[in-house]
Amino acid sequence: MESTLTFSEIGPVDGIINAALAEDLASGDVTGRVTVSAHTRWSARLIAKQRLVVAGGAVARAVFHRVDPTVEASMLLRDGEVAAAGTVLLQLQGNARALLAAERTALNLLQRMCGVATLTRAYVDAAAGRCRIVDTRKTMPGLRALDRYAVRCGGGHNHRNDLGAGVLIKENHVRAAGGVAEAVARARVHAPHTLRIECEVTDLDELREALRAGADAVLLDNMDDEQVRAAVAIVDRKAVVEVSGGVSLERISQLAHLGIDVISVGKLTHSAPASDISLLFQRGDGSWG
Amino acid sequence: MESTLTFSEIGPVDGIINAALAEDLASGDVTGRVTVSAHTRWSARLIAKQRLVVAGGAVARAVFHRVDPTVEASMLLRDGEVAAAGTVLLQLQGNARALLAAERTALNLLQRMCGVATLTRAYVDAAAGRCRIVDTRKTMPGLRALDRYAVRCGGGHNHRNDLGAGVLIKENHVRAAGGVAEAVARARVHAPHTLRIECEVTDLDELREALRAGADAVLLDNMDDEQVRAAVAIVDRKAVVEVSGGVSLERISQLAHLGIDVISVGKLTHSAPASDISLLFQRGDGSWG
Amino acid sequence: MESTLTFSEIGPVDGIINAALAEDLASGDVTGRVTVSAHTRWSARLIAKQRLVVAGGAVARAVFHRVDPTVEASMLLRDGEVAAAGTVLLQLQGNARALLAAERTALNLLQRMCGVATLTRAYVDAAAGRCRIVDTRKTMPGLRALDRYAVRCGGGHNHRNDLGAGVLIKENHVRAAGGVAEAVARARVHAPHTLRIECEVTDLDELREALRAGADAVLLDNMDDEQVRAAVAIVDRKAVVEVSGGVSLERISQLAHLGIDVISVGKLTHSAPASDISLLFQRGDGSWG
Amino acid sequence: MESTLTFSEIGPVDGIINAALAEDLASGDVTGRVTVSAHTRWSARLIAKQRLVVAGGAVARAVFHRVDPTVEASMLLRDGEVAAAGTVLLQLQGNARALLAAERTALNLLQRMCGVATLTRAYVDAAAGRCRIVDTRKTMPGLRALDRYAVRCGGGHNHRNDLGAGVLIKENHVRAAGGVAEAVARARVHAPHTLRIECEVTDLDELREALRAGADAVLLDNMDDEQVRAAVAIVDRKAVVEVSGGVSLERISQLAHLGIDVISVGKLTHSAPASDISLLFQRGDGSWG
Amino acid sequence: MESTLTFSEIGPVDGIINAALAEDLASGDVTGRVTVSAHTRWSARLIAKQRLVVAGGAVARAVFHRVDPTVEASMLLRDGEVAAAGTVLLQLQGNARALLAAERTALNLLQRMCGVATLTRAYVDAAAGRCRIVDTRKTMPGLRALDRYAVRCGGGHNHRNDLGAGVLIKENHVRAAGGVAEAVARARVHAPHTLRIECEVTDLDELREALRAGADAVLLDNMDDEQVRAAVAIVDRKAVVEVSGGVSLERISQLAHLGIDVISVGKLTHSAPASDISLLFQRGDGSWG
Amino acid sequence: MESTLTFSEIGPVDGIINAALAEDLASGDVTGRVTVSAHTRWSARLIAKQRLVVAGGAVARAVFHRVDPTVEASMLLRDGEVAAAGTVLLQLQGNARALLAAERTALNLLQRMCGVATLTRAYVDAAAGRCRIVDTRKTMPGLRALDRYAVRCGGGHNHRNDLGAGVLIKENHVRAAGGVAEAVARARVHAPHTLRIECEVTDLDELREALRAGADAVLLDNMDDEQVRAAVAIVDRKAVVEVSGGVSLERISQLAHLGIDVISVGKLTHSAPASDISLLFQRGDGSWG
Repeated sequence: MESTLTFSEIGPVDGIINAALAEDLASGDVTGRVTVSAHTRWSARLIAKQRLVVAGGAVARAVFHRVDPTVEASMLLRDGEVAAAGTVLLQLQGNARALLAAERTALNLLQRMCGVATLTRAYVDAAAGRCRIVDTRKTMPGLRALDRYAVRCGGGHNHRNDLGAGVLIKENHVRAAGGVAEAVARARVHAPHTLRIECEVTDLDELREALRAGADAVLLDNMDDEQVRAAVAIVDRKAVVEVSGGVSLERISQLAHLGIDVISVGKLTHSAPASDISLLFQRGDGSWG
Repeated sequence: MESTLTFSEIGPVDGIINAALAEDLASGDVTGRVTVSAHTRWSARLIAKQRLVVAGGAVARAVFHRVDPTVEASMLLRDGEVAAAGTVLLQLQGNARALLAAERTALNLLQRMCGVATLTRAYVDAAAGRCRIVDTRKTMPGLRALDRYAVRCGGGHNHRNDLGAGVLIKENHVRAAGGVAEAVARARVHAPHTLRIECEVTDLDELREALRAGADAVLLDNMDDEQVRAAVAIVDRKAVVEVSGGVSLERISQLAHLGIDVISVGKLTHSAPASDISLLFQRGDGSWG
Repeated sequence: MESTLTFSEIGPVDGIINAALAEDLASGDVTGRVTVSAHTRWSARLIAKQRLVVAGGAVARAVFHRVDPTVEASMLLRDGEVAAAGTVLLQLQGNARALLAAERTALNLLQRMCGVATLTRAYVDAAAGRCRIVDTRKTMPGLRALDRYAVRCGGGHNHRNDLGAGVLIKENHVRAAGGVAEAVARARVHAPHTLRIECEVTDLDELREALRAGADAVLLDNMDDEQVRAAVAIVDRKAVVEVSGGVSLERISQLAHLGIDVISVGKLTHSAPASDISLLFQRGDGSWG
Repeated sequence: MESTLTFSEIGPVDGIINAALAEDLASGDVTGRVTVSAHTRWSARLIAKQRLVVAGGAVARAVFHRVDPTVEASMLLRDGEVAAAGTVLLQLQGNARALLAAERTALNLLQRMCGVATLTRAYVDAAAGRCRIVDTRKTMPGLRALDRYAVRCGGGHNHRNDLGAGVLIKENHVRAAGGVAEAVARARVHAPHTLRIECEVTDLDELREALRAGADAVLLDNMDDEQVRAAVAIVDRKAVVEVSGGVSLERISQLAHLGIDVISVGKLTHSAPASDISLLFQRGDGSWG
Repeated sequence: MESTLTFSEIGPVDGIINAALAEDLASGDVTGRVTVSAHTRWSARLIAKQRLVVAGGAVARAVFHRVDPTVEASMLLRDGEVAAAGTVLLQLQGNARALLAAERTALNLLQRMCGVATLTRAYVDAAAGRCRIVDTRKTMPGLRALDRYAVRCGGGHNHRNDLGAGVLIKENHVRAAGGVAEAVARARVHAPHTLRIECEVTDLDELREALRAGADAVLLDNMDDEQVRAAVAIVDRKAVVEVSGGVSLERISQLAHLGIDVISVGKLTHSAPASDISLLFQRGDGSWG
Repeated sequence: MESTLTFSEIGPVDGIINAALAEDLASGDVTGRVTVSAHTRWSARLIAKQRLVVAGGAVARAVFHRVDPTVEASMLLRDGEVAAAGTVLLQLQGNARALLAAERTALNLLQRMCGVATLTRAYVDAAAGRCRIVDTRKTMPGLRALDRYAVRCGGGHNHRNDLGAGVLIKENHVRAAGGVAEAVARARVHAPHTLRIECEVTDLDELREALRAGADAVLLDNMDDEQVRAAVAIVDRKAVVEVSGGVSLERISQLAHLGIDVISVGKLTHSAPASDISLLFQRGDGSWG
């Protein structure tokens, strides 16, 4: 089964894999070298120890291949699929020292990505298809491409990738420009026409001002349900409506019914717990441990 | 107040900072450019929005300096200190566009590092000085140097930095070598004399075998309190005793009384939630928002 | 006079400068080393030898500083200003060997950037403020950040920075999706809400289909003036209208009167001739040569 | 048909390709991802839309392979061959998303290289084999290796690659050394014996002085035909004679008859227009568009 | 015959190979290009011109593959084996230009590594198995991974890899801490439990103090045989005993009989002469030259 | 006293320094961190422990500054000067942890460079000004720029820097081209005019052929004094005469009297022993140790 993770999907990830391996293997694996013979071959499995959404199978596989191109690695699930606890995710065969050397780095990346995808899925399920769950730029430094991909594996959408891939006018931009209308106007004049112009608003007056000025999207900042409902009515589908600001999993389903388009959740990437995944080797008696 | 974070402490971090900035600023900050005048100067503050242990002040400051060397940034707390909610951590002054451009990257790094330090502190407090709390190699890919430093800021200790900085014989190494005694013996013959030889054991027989073979440290794998107590008695201070394997915060204080030396906790780095920290700019009326 | 070229404006340019210097100076400057004494100090000037729009002054200065941080370099014009032939752009003083070693690299970058800015200004002037002149992704490989900045110095705007910073549906995407409507619909469902959805159309039927499907912008492909006028009427300001496809300088003023919003011009960056700029050193008699 | 472009020919080009792709694909191709199915396969062609000299076929192919190693790409012409308008240069087959993602970067590089080769060929043809046309160090920053290779594809020769690969004494070196004779003498004493010593001269006296001092080559600076003819007579084949300084295509054939060896032309690389090349995909009906 | 040199053994070496090739081939191989046809294929051999210990066969092979992946290269001896003068080490076949271009870089690396291994073997032979010969951190900058591997090929062992992979308390650390006992105590409290704590001692009193404080290893600094013998008796196998400080090959066999564990020899890596190895091409008549 | 080591002299060395530090300090200096207080300041000295030629003072200083920009470091001798045993080379003051962390890397680089310079000086002295002593491309991989600079510090000259900075036709090129005359002719037609064309010859017939074909330099391969003398007479100063091939220090003075121009010595860089240099810290009583 082939992975759908390609360069066109996610950008180059070699740099991330090299940096991660360099942290762990800059001077090789002493323990493996001194206890395992150089030509031993082993079979191994990556196994989900909890229910999780798969993300990053091709990344894990690439780690093993980077350490030793002759390792055979085949993903048994596709990114985005749900794995029950106990499911084998990746089947491996190859040089024992190479498998041991790559193990931790592969797991660190896979557990991170599955962790993000799994948490995202919980939010997406809570929203029940009524609005998008999107990530933020609060990603793990150095891992943004993987984090964003993992969010998509979990059924989420992406917010702007970086400060050049979207215009998001916040309170301080407004203040610098001299008002909501002026800030939106400046953006309409100067920003690339390929980017929507989104403006954060703190009350309904600002909302109306942003809409009048031509904002393509509005970010409702810390509004309660009542205000959100009113805002949605004012917007009347003439702009994208995003809600942000510490939205808990509990509040999602409620919010999702109010007619908004997007809920952005920093927690998806800044605080996702790693998924529990283990690598087991096959023992001489055929068992795995 | 000067930071104690130097090259000799933590290794080079420029690479991490450059990679993190590149993710967010490869094509500049469109919103800042189109709404804020080029020569505006602002004051800003990084403020703790929860109780936290400070870690990474110098890293955050370095992010601002990398974006614009003329930004003035002074840390008000030292790494390792506890900040109550509402505490100002970093005072900033400089070009408004630069502050806006660096904000997210600086926060992402600082929130990560404080998150790790704060979680570590909880475990360290639970251990009440009776044994070490140490990290594992389950760090965020690319951020190991920062994660390990943050663990120390939280009062924890470090396990081996990488596969070349310690010998840790696990079940599969034992199997490859043909037994605990043989694996330890091989390590004693071949590994650098600068590294302790630690051996994972699953029962008291293996423990005795490892000690007889000359292990400097033993890792008790998934033993209950009874077994741990027996193991400690057998070791009799002739080797370092580490306990590992999904130790919860709750179990720490109990375990810490059993006479062990080290508890390793993967969660410190693979699942630490980010600390809540905000950057506020000073408004014209002197208030911050 | 300070340059407005900051990290937040343009992203990191150190990599470009280092790569350019490495090409020329990997093993030092033999001629300078063997003919000029190590401690000689010279004054020098970068002078425009043609009328040009300045772009990249801070980049040129940074090249000299990278070779020798003690070189004094001050820009006399700001990026975006027009320099008549004969104008001094940059005043330099410092170690003679360093000035000689940095000269060519600084000039190569500055001549490129001024070349792009100067060509852009010609198109912008032809459009007379009636529509935007924008660049394309047909930039010089490795120099996109500088090329895009230079376009802005020339009064132009930027199109999407990269394949992740805008949605532009072309014929082949349409074919893959099964039609204009389907392609736009897919983009509306899956693309980040921060990006406008632009769709290339080849006739007025496709145009209507794209608009009905909710395209935020349309790209009129190789239409004559008649068709463009009709298209503009159909769009009726409900979407951004871009015209593309080998638009010559001559046709610009005509097109600009038809009510379109954007003309994209690949030539600005794929075929801009370098501006003519020289570095002159001050002779003993005070003259420059 | 195999390309002759190897590491030994041109040096490493991976860095250039990676940098170019990173500019365009750092966060993947949104449009391709949202409109084209992950497993679609397409055929495509790179087609010359003008008469051009081919250069960089292997580079273009390498871009596709870097994005997706399973893309099949075969060059139909060799570098250095002339392609008429309409000629298919490169035949491609592979994953549709990968082809779309690599397209622009491959074209940017190929159009640049063909542009340089095509312009060079015009100068070479004008010189009619009577003297060399050579490039200068006025190459596009970051692309020197490709620019120089393209010049050779166009039938041109290379000047020194960098400041360490040739001695070229100019006016300011002469001044620093205290005279032409002294500068050449210093170079003869100190420069590697593997490098020719070339000296720029502004009149026939300086020329005689340079020759007497042992210059291996002389660069005639801004001399008219009369002076060039006199200089050639003085040199009498005892040194290489180079003419430089804004030589137009028109003046080449004239100059070439005067007995000089080398004409260096900065324009070949600082102002070559890109060649017009398109990528067409095969439609369901077999046509290309 | 397969090489045992893998990523898990030695860490990533691509960076070293790329840097080495970049030094020699940044602009290609002019001589090969101008004298050898592009498609010529040659056979070649790397031949030992002196008795040597093989180290780095896989590295040399990797250099050829980096220049041209189609070169066939097979090692005839394994790392660690002794080659008599005249032995063929590596058999090569491939594109002539590629072989010529890679030759010097491959030889430079192989001659260095064999040189280190060969010198190490001399020391190891002198020690006759009675104690370890280990390297130091006095490795060639940039080549530590290769130097350390070569030492192992020569039968030596490695000292700590870097400043994070071992604790070695020297005179100045002692002074800073306020005494041997205090320095060792601090290290026991703060250093990772995976590292042995080694302490340099200058006399027998310091030795006793270090042992009492719990040092795992002691480094005897510039002691004569008498003192070493006394020290060994005091240590009584309760700690590792290392001797250092300009130990000559002559003194080794003597020292090795005194009951010490480790002799560290800086010379192995800071002053190893290169082994004499040549690359010969097969002539038309079948001979090699 | 300022160093003359600039970018224009030697090219960029940051990469070398960063790579060297990364090998030793990727995870910081454990021993320094656990035994020395963070704010301790020390004075230190680098002292020659043997007679040596200084090379690389600015490189050593740069290592300390890279670790901690606040370290004060002043060179007391200039590169190229001779230091007697006991001479203080570099005076240092700064943070104790930083000095300890940088010590080994600074010494490794300085000892290497002084080692090369010192060995070169011995050869240069033996040649007594009668001919050049030059290096080869047999430099330490990754350190070519430093090795070549050190050779110059020792009074030697450089051979071609890389395969693009000189044409050197060897036996196999001759064979590929079909003879000496043909190989030289091809080089004259195709190689950059900035490079001398040097041809290796094995007997006097080949020598005459090379000269007739227009070689600028000849390399006499393994000729005895008799042959060299005859060759010099044949060349009659019409070409540069280089002698190569395992020339011992002993044979130099003899060879130098035969009228040759250049002796190339691989040993200068492939087998130079490191110079003996120590770093001493100032003790509380003012003494150094």
